[in-house]
Amino acid sequence: MLAEQLQQTIDFKTKPLGALGHLEYLAHKIGMVQKTVSPELLNPHMVVFAADHGIATAGVSAYPQEVTYQMVMNFLGGGAAINVFCRQHHIAIKIVDAGVNFDFPEDLELINKKVRKSSRNILEEPAMTVEEYQQALENGRSVVAEIAETGCNIIGFGEMGIGNTSASSLMMSQLFDLPIVSCIGRGTGLNDDQLQNKINILSAAIEKYPGISTPDDIVQTFGGLEIAQMIGAMEEAFRQNMLIMVDGFIATVAVATAWKKNPEIINHCIFCHVSDEKAHLQLIGLLGQKALLNLNLRLGEGTGCALAYPLIQSAVNFLNEMSSFEDAHVSNKE
Amino acid sequence: MLAEQLQQTIDFKTKPLGALGHLEYLAHKIGMVQKTVSPELLNPHMVVFAADHGIATAGVSAYPQEVTYQMVMNFLGGGAAINVFCRQHHIAIKIVDAGVNFDFPEDLELINKKVRKSSRNILEEPAMTVEEYQQALENGRSVVAEIAETGCNIIGFGEMGIGNTSASSLMMSQLFDLPIVSCIGRGTGLNDDQLQNKINILSAAIEKYPGISTPDDIVQTFGGLEIAQMIGAMEEAFRQNMLIMVDGFIATVAVATAWKKNPEIINHCIFCHVSDEKAHLQLIGLLGQKALLNLNLRLGEGTGCALAYPLIQSAVNFLNEMSSFEDAHVSNKE
Repeated sequence: MLAEQLQQTIDFKTKPLGALGHLEYLAHKIGMVQKTVSPELLNPHMVVFAADHGIATAGVSAYPQEVTYQMVMNFLGGGAAINVFCRQHHIAIKIVDAGVNFDFPEDLELINKKVRKSSRNILEEPAMTVEEYQQALENGRSVVAEIAETGCNIIGFGEMGIGNTSASSLMMSQLFDLPIVSCIGRGTGLNDDQLQNKINILSAAIEKYPGISTPDDIVQTFGGLEIAQMIGAMEEAFRQNMLIMVDGFIATVAVATAWKKNPEIINHCIFCHVSDEKAHLQLIGLLGQKALLNLNLRLGEGTGCALAYPLIQSAVNFLNEMSSFEDAHVSNKE
Repeated sequence: MLAEQLQQTIDFKTKPLGALGHLEYLAHKIGMVQKTVSPELLNPHMVVFAADHGIATAGVSAYPQEVTYQMVMNFLGGGAAINVFCRQHHIAIKIVDAGVNFDFPEDLELINKKVRKSSRNILEEPAMTVEEYQQALENGRSVVAEIAETGCNIIGFGEMGIGNTSASSLMMSQLFDLPIVSCIGRGTGLNDDQLQNKINILSAAIEKYPGISTPDDIVQTFGGLEIAQMIGAMEEAFRQNMLIMVDGFIATVAVATAWKKNPEIINHCIFCHVSDEKAHLQLIGLLGQKALLNLNLRLGEGTGCALAYPLIQSAVNFLNEMSSFEDAHVSNKE
């Protein structure tokens, strides 16, 4: 019934049928999540989870590991891209230390959810122990539960972690039983030799752990602390009936993991952009989804969510504010 | 020198090289137009030109001709999609009667630039006389000249006119010497029979006027009053050194016409979206450009511009507000 009411409200707006394209699909989706033909976006939040990766020392990234903590300091200082875009759209931003390899001063506006300094090097042992993985999930959940108390009903998740496209490629390969090479991209900008090196290292990692198949085992073995916390956070956002803004490749791998555990989460997800990271488009397709933006971004941090946010707001606004043919005395199709 | 300074400013921001994709291209373009590494968007405006088309009576549209004036009333009442999106982004909106087939009351906030009621039926005579065409260009220029006095430096153009995708298809076919069938789409939503009818009618129109080849002659013969005014308006916006936001198929045909007369105008144009109207993507490609959004919109009115505006603002904001590697003490690529 609500589904039909929403479609009728959309169709009777003063525009040709379907003329607002993807925004119409979005308005319908948001109405269904909020169970109303007059949805609203309240207190939008962006949470950026940061952590280091044991595998980073193997040379899978173009940047040194210290960039993770340096960028956390940059987030806290308001000078990163995600800060700029969140300020522009009045999105509250929270930075979470999920496992950065650094001792931060205590007086920072940083949410301390550090499970340990950096995930373990998967070339030697699983990225997390079972206990560390469970703790990471719980930490992510607790961040969102606290934000929910502010009345927030739309939330995006970003990440920072040198080496985390490697972890994500491994997870994608295992979640969907795909050859690793089809899940690997150039991350923050690898050249050909570096890319071949990344392929070799990740292939070796996969051979080391045969028979890993459940989503939880895959994250624990191949993932990272910020990815695990993001999964917990997404699951909590779903439980709190929030809209979930999905950013780039890493965030999409996180949502794919949660989706393997509970497919219903996808009804709450807004896929904000297709990144320049090669495997991302394929992954969005595997989830049967389409993204709002395609701007060749490959930055992470949640930037795709923040940039797409005004489009999500536009979907809500046209539903609430546009006249119907009847109200505006406009003739409909003959 | 400025081009290099801009590129360097972009490259030293705390992000991997090129990671903001299309926004980096946009930031560079805007800086070049405004001749500064610290550009700003001032007093954004949207101008919607409305007019009727003699050819509409031949049944090329799914909607009756009175929808043109009814939608003008809807714009003035604030209930159309373009009103909603302009309100959202604080874009001032002006509605221009370029040639609507209706006597509007005089107390409306409508800019009266009516050249005549509706263009002529091109199945019988050229859409405009030479004098009417010159008047339309001049009327469009005058609208923008007045807006420029407010300090506006970025302007978008929308249109409303039942039948105007037909006029635009004819213009595209003549401007680029393409078969008419490759320039025709379903407009506001034609079915297969209606589409075939549209193809037949437009083919007949082309056969009636052999040897029309200059851009001015093409608009005068096949165009419309709102399209001609939009061309004049775009030329004036270029002369005033404004950024020009280009909307859908019809606006892109207008800019293509201006570009045939002076290719430099393209340096000021921001292509806001690729519409669902089939020929639009091809036309953007012919101009060597790429659009910001691809949301399957096919509404016109300038909606693609208004929806893309926050992305243009984001390009300016990251250039002005993001920290550099040096300022933020972040290590650059090894």
